[in-house]
Amino acid sequence: MSSQIDEIKVVALAGGVGGAKLVDGFAQLLPATDLIVIVNTGDDFEHLGLYICPDLDTVCYTLAGRANPDTGWGRANETWNTLDSLREIGGPDWFRLGDLDLGTHLERTRRLKQGDPLSTITRDFCGSWGVETVILPMSDERVPTLVISEDGEIPFQEYYVRQACQPVVSGFQYGERENISPAPGVLNAFDQSDLVVICPSNPWVSIMPILSLNGIRGELREHPVAAVSPIIAGRALKGPAAKMCMEMGITPSPYAIAEQYRDFLDLIFIDQSDHEYLDAINELGIQVHITDTIMKNGADRRRLAEEVVQNSEGILKNK
Amino acid sequence: MSSQIDEIKVVALAGGVGGAKLVDGFAQLLPATDLIVIVNTGDDFEHLGLYICPDLDTVCYTLAGRANPDTGWGRANETWNTLDSLREIGGPDWFRLGDLDLGTHLERTRRLKQGDPLSTITRDFCGSWGVETVILPMSDERVPTLVISEDGEIPFQEYYVRQACQPVVSGFQYGERENISPAPGVLNAFDQSDLVVICPSNPWVSIMPILSLNGIRGELREHPVAAVSPIIAGRALKGPAAKMCMEMGITPSPYAIAEQYRDFLDLIFIDQSDHEYLDAINELGIQVHITDTIMKNGADRRRLAEEVVQNSEGILKNK
Repeated sequence: MSSQIDEIKVVALAGGVGGAKLVDGFAQLLPATDLIVIVNTGDDFEHLGLYICPDLDTVCYTLAGRANPDTGWGRANETWNTLDSLREIGGPDWFRLGDLDLGTHLERTRRLKQGDPLSTITRDFCGSWGVETVILPMSDERVPTLVISEDGEIPFQEYYVRQACQPVVSGFQYGERENISPAPGVLNAFDQSDLVVICPSNPWVSIMPILSLNGIRGELREHPVAAVSPIIAGRALKGPAAKMCMEMGITPSPYAIAEQYRDFLDLIFIDQSDHEYLDAINELGIQVHITDTIMKNGADRRRLAEEVVQNSEGILKNK
Repeated sequence: MSSQIDEIKVVALAGGVGGAKLVDGFAQLLPATDLIVIVNTGDDFEHLGLYICPDLDTVCYTLAGRANPDTGWGRANETWNTLDSLREIGGPDWFRLGDLDLGTHLERTRRLKQGDPLSTITRDFCGSWGVETVILPMSDERVPTLVISEDGEIPFQEYYVRQACQPVVSGFQYGERENISPAPGVLNAFDQSDLVVICPSNPWVSIMPILSLNGIRGELREHPVAAVSPIIAGRALKGPAAKMCMEMGITPSPYAIAEQYRDFLDLIFIDQSDHEYLDAINELGIQVHITDTIMKNGADRRRLAEEVVQNSEGILKNK
C-alpha cells in the first residue's frame, strides 16, 4: 500500500449488499476519518408499524461485523422467533424480520416518532455498534422509490420482496416530490473528499435515488468520480439490475452503467469478462479499468477497494 | 365430579397471573361452551409503538398452554434476542418483551390499526392457538387505569413495571371518561351463565376496571357472584394488592376484598389461614367458604375451580 492510498479521502455512494461489500473494503483500507458513506434510503418502508431501512442497515451491520455472512443482509446469528410467532396468528411474513434486526427497527421507529432525524439515529446506532466510519442516510426526509410497471406504481420493497421482482419495469419515480434535501453532512462530504466512488449497486434503485436529491449531481460533476460496475457478464451478482435493463430495452452491460452515469463519471471498473466494452465506454469519454470485480470474501473486498484507490490517481486532477 | 358441575355455566372475571390460574382450573373442569372469561384491559398500554395487553395475553397464553410456567406471564420457551438488540442501541428495556410475545403485539397492533376490534383479534388469535374457551377483553375501547399517587397520576404499567410499585397509592381512575361500553358479548355472558366468579386478581387494578364499565355492576347485582380472595394471610401472592390496601388505610385481608365487592358479592372463598375473618365477612351479608386457595400446579387450579363450583350451589338460587 503506497502512502498515496493512506492519504486519499473517499466518499462512497452505496445501496445494499454489493455496495456494503465494497464499503467494507474501503473501511479495511482507510482510516475511519478518510471514508464517508452515503447510503440509499429510497427502499425504506413501513411494515408492521416499523420504519425499516434495508440498505442503511445492511451497510451498518456490515461495517459493524454483524451482517449475516451467508445472505449479506440481516444479522449474523439471527433467530426468527418473532416471525414464527407472528405467522402462527396469521400475520404477514413476506418480509423476513429477524429477532435481532427487529430491535433496530423498534428503536429507530421509536426515535423517529419522538422527532429525532434518521441521520442522528444512524450515528448513535453506529456508535453503539462500534462503527467508526461516518455512515449517512442520503436524506432525513422520506424519499420512497416507486417502481413503475405494467401493474402500476409499486413501492420498492413490495416489488422486490413481496412480488419477487416479477412485474415488468418501465421506469422509476424517486420520492414523492422534487427538491428534496440530502441529510446534514452529505453535500459537505464531497468537498471533504478526494474521490467519489459509486459502489457496485443497482443504478436505478440504489444510486439514482441518491442522485435525485438536491445538489448531488452538481457535486458529482465537480469531483472525480469512479464507479464499479454492478453488471458482470450481462448479469447482476444479486438483485434485478439486469432484468430491469432488459425490460427497459437496454442491454445489461458495464456500458449501460457507464451511460447512466455519463454526465459525471470519469472512470469505471469493469470485470475482466466484460473487456469487450472497453472501447465503447471510452467513446463516452469515460476511462475504463479492467479487473476482477467479484468479492467473495473480506480479502477480495479490500483488494478491490485498494485497486479502485490506486487506479483512480489519474482522475484526481481531472476536475 | 357430579353431574351438577358438568352443567353449570361460569362467567369468570380475571386479571393477570392469579386470575389466569383459576380460569385454567375452570377450563380443565368445564366444557369449553360452559365458560366465558372477561379479562381486564385497564393495564393495556402502548410501548415502542406496540399495543400491549398484559392481562389478556396472560389469560390467552395460559389457556393455550403457552404461558411461561415459571413466571406465569409471557411465553414458554421464550427468547430475548430483540430486547438484547434493542438494549445495545440504547432502547428502553424496562418492559420485558420476549421474541415470541412480540409476534403477538406486532400482529395485534397491525390489526388494530387496520380497524379490527380487540375482541375480534382476540377471538382470532385464540383460534390460531387452539383455545376453545371464549375469552373476551372487557372492552374494545381503551380504558387505561391510572394510579393516583403522591407523584401524580401514573399509567398502570409505568407504575407496576417501570416504577416497581414504589409510589404510594391514594386511589385509581378507570378510563378517561365515563360510560364506556363493554366489548360485544360481555353483557350477554352474564345471562348465558349460572355463576359469576371473580378470580383471585387485584380488586383495584384488575377487577374494578371491569366493574367500571357500563352495565357490569347491574349484571353482578342480578346474578349469583362468588369471589376467590387474592389476599392470603395479609399478603397478595403476587403484585401490589396488599401494599395498595395499606397505603389506602385498609388492612389487607379477605374482609377488605369482601367489602370492596359487598354491593353484589354472595360468597367468598378465603384461605384457611384467614379463618378469623369468617364472622366479620358474614356480617356484611356475604357467605364464606374456607379452603386452600393457593394454586401451585395445574391440579391445584382444577381442584380450586371444582371447589368453587361445588360450594356455590347454595347461592345459585339466591338472586
